[in-house]
Amino acid sequence: MQRLPGFRDFYPEEFAFRNYLFDNWRRVARSFGFVEYDGPTLEPTELYKKKSGEELKTQLFRFVDQGNRDVCMRPEMTPTLARLVAARAREYRKPIKWFSISPFFRFEKPQKGRLREFYQINCDIIGDDSPAADAELIGLAIALHRVFGLTETDFLVRINNRNLWAEFLIKHQQPIERLSEFLSIIDRLEREKEEVTAGKLRSFQLDLAAVREFLGTPPGSVPGFSELFRELQWRGLEGFVQLDLTIVRGLDYYTGLVFEIFDREKENRSLAGGGRYNNLISTISEGETDLPAAGFAIGDVTFTKLLQGLDHTRQRIDYALRTPCGAFIVIADEMRRPEALELAQTLRRSGVIVDYSLQPTKVARQFQQAGTVGAKYAVVIGQEWPQVRVKLLAERTEQILSKDDLSLFLGDN
Amino acid sequence: MQRLPGFRDFYPEEFAFRNYLFDNWRRVARSFGFVEYDGPTLEPTELYKKKSGEELKTQLFRFVDQGNRDVCMRPEMTPTLARLVAARAREYRKPIKWFSISPFFRFEKPQKGRLREFYQINCDIIGDDSPAADAELIGLAIALHRVFGLTETDFLVRINNRNLWAEFLIKHQQPIERLSEFLSIIDRLEREKEEVTAGKLRSFQLDLAAVREFLGTPPGSVPGFSELFRELQWRGLEGFVQLDLTIVRGLDYYTGLVFEIFDREKENRSLAGGGRYNNLISTISEGETDLPAAGFAIGDVTFTKLLQGLDHTRQRIDYALRTPCGAFIVIADEMRRPEALELAQTLRRSGVIVDYSLQPTKVARQFQQAGTVGAKYAVVIGQEWPQVRVKLLAERTEQILSKDDLSLFLGDN
Repeated sequence: MQRLPGFRDFYPEEFAFRNYLFDNWRRVARSFGFVEYDGPTLEPTELYKKKSGEELKTQLFRFVDQGNRDVCMRPEMTPTLARLVAARAREYRKPIKWFSISPFFRFEKPQKGRLREFYQINCDIIGDDSPAADAELIGLAIALHRVFGLTETDFLVRINNRNLWAEFLIKHQQPIERLSEFLSIIDRLEREKEEVTAGKLRSFQLDLAAVREFLGTPPGSVPGFSELFRELQWRGLEGFVQLDLTIVRGLDYYTGLVFEIFDREKENRSLAGGGRYNNLISTISEGETDLPAAGFAIGDVTFTKLLQGLDHTRQRIDYALRTPCGAFIVIADEMRRPEALELAQTLRRSGVIVDYSLQPTKVARQFQQAGTVGAKYAVVIGQEWPQVRVKLLAERTEQILSKDDLSLFLGDN
Repeated sequence: MQRLPGFRDFYPEEFAFRNYLFDNWRRVARSFGFVEYDGPTLEPTELYKKKSGEELKTQLFRFVDQGNRDVCMRPEMTPTLARLVAARAREYRKPIKWFSISPFFRFEKPQKGRLREFYQINCDIIGDDSPAADAELIGLAIALHRVFGLTETDFLVRINNRNLWAEFLIKHQQPIERLSEFLSIIDRLEREKEEVTAGKLRSFQLDLAAVREFLGTPPGSVPGFSELFRELQWRGLEGFVQLDLTIVRGLDYYTGLVFEIFDREKENRSLAGGGRYNNLISTISEGETDLPAAGFAIGDVTFTKLLQGLDHTRQRIDYALRTPCGAFIVIADEMRRPEALELAQTLRRSGVIVDYSLQPTKVARQFQQAGTVGAKYAVVIGQEWPQVRVKLLAERTEQILSKDDLSLFLGDN
């Protein structure tokens, strides 16, 4: 009996890492004043039909449920978020700053760094169309990397604005309705052969040289970026970002700013992506609610690979994942088992992590068990009761304490 | 654009409650020495085919995926857990004590207390067949209720052992192979009309009177329960439990002990259920791994209703969910925005939750915003820079601090 391909089991060691990742993400997002939300795992397929990119639409876990509804397991968060905000926009002070950490599902070809169920943190600012909001989002995205010890030598934020390419099309007298199609050429520019790209560009009456020249525009002469860069500078983040006109993102709903975060080593793996989607909430609410919005997502798969692949971040992981058992109760006299169980109850209620042997076992074997679960202290209950012998296992020192002092002692240590 | 019926959106207020619930569950399970794991949201349908109850099998979100696999969104955790343990049983010290908190999916008729996506905490002990393990599980289940302030006047654990009914069938010379069928009659005993039950019992050549007499067996004369009750007594939990022979549980894999937790008021709503399933791991691994196991699950829907319906637990909720914003930075002099942003970065990195207005705004309006997000302090940046004015908003007191002392001050307060 096997799990499905592209899905993961999280054994305790793997789950401990997942908790480490999510706890830190959650703490950082909160420190930026973002609050957490979530939506359903299953949504009507309708929600993704017009709004997501072509690629996503072919990758859906889509089916007809027992109630004859066309449904799919969510492939991304943004349409759900837009639905939530559209329904209750008036109830919240703007800008709305929300985040979520949840699983997503895409029927991808199994390959390195791609799974069919994966987790993402999604962060969005809704109701503010300014470069200040864009900078705040990029600042948060960067902080969500730095909290694990990643530095500007480890990752890079590449920024672009889709409007620059819209202007480029207009300047070359090409129809703006074909922007989406044109952007997908730019998206594949670095992965495809020159002649393939050139061929595609011919349908736009454009040549590769003109595109290449535009790609080389120096940052200083790109209009509209100075405010964003000033905002990033104020936050001390200019070393983390770079203008890159090849970044266009695959999703159809982006309207302006787009950005992607890359691993500087390792074939430039993409770690995160996002952008501005000013029309999506209006589309989803059929014009009832119109709010500018921007957001990004970091996926857990590539991100985990990066953290586990670097020495300096791996050390932090090792430290964070050390097993936290506080006390192992060693029952040296089986007559005292009732008192031991009562003590376990008391200590656990005061928040101490307590373990002990469910079965009568030799004392030496109980100390072995204490080691296996990584207990910090062994609390030996025997003839001295109501006093107990407390051993600090790593240092092999011990002291005698009254059972009533134990909660306080273990809570402090 | 609507969400699917039976599914939930978690707006921030609702998500805060979900976090309150899960955080407390997690802390208590850990204090018992349980470690967290998870499995995939989607599993091969095969995994549930023989092992779950009839009812569950008709409620699956089941479909054929793009790779032509018969799959379903998990309706419960136990088969996944059995699969995980069977695959790596040798790597873990016994007893294995694992828990998980995750979403499940059942196509239920929409009704009070039933949703199509819901969360459960699942806790299991694997590799120990003793009443001590049973008592430890029941003790944990009780602790997971008590942590929210619930007492023995709020809930009750009803305990039974399926073997008692097996013995009953044998004593009345009925075929033991029909135990499952017989138990489903007992399961519905209190919900169905007497003549319906009597009719069903006739196919067993049994009459209702004999069943009723057996149901009334006094606890003292039920064999096999004395050890379990002694273990519960040692833990001080005897007031929370009661023998009840009508508890049989709907799932086919239970082999001995079964128990269910009920809300004492409100039509005796079921809050949690579990039992011993000594054969499941062997079945799933086709005989390769054979380990005794027992576990239980608490669902979030009914449990949430109970907590939100009682005065004494609701007070705790209100206290726990107060918004935690630490400091709102009020920019009294727009020339100081760069310094304000830098300060926000520093404070956030030291763990303080910091908010501020992304747009230049009148000072009075900024104080209003500080109130809306529930900030404890307002930090006013203006002419005094690099000193700042720190106002404790609830008490309208203030003091002047150097910006460098601020992290320490806000961290301590």
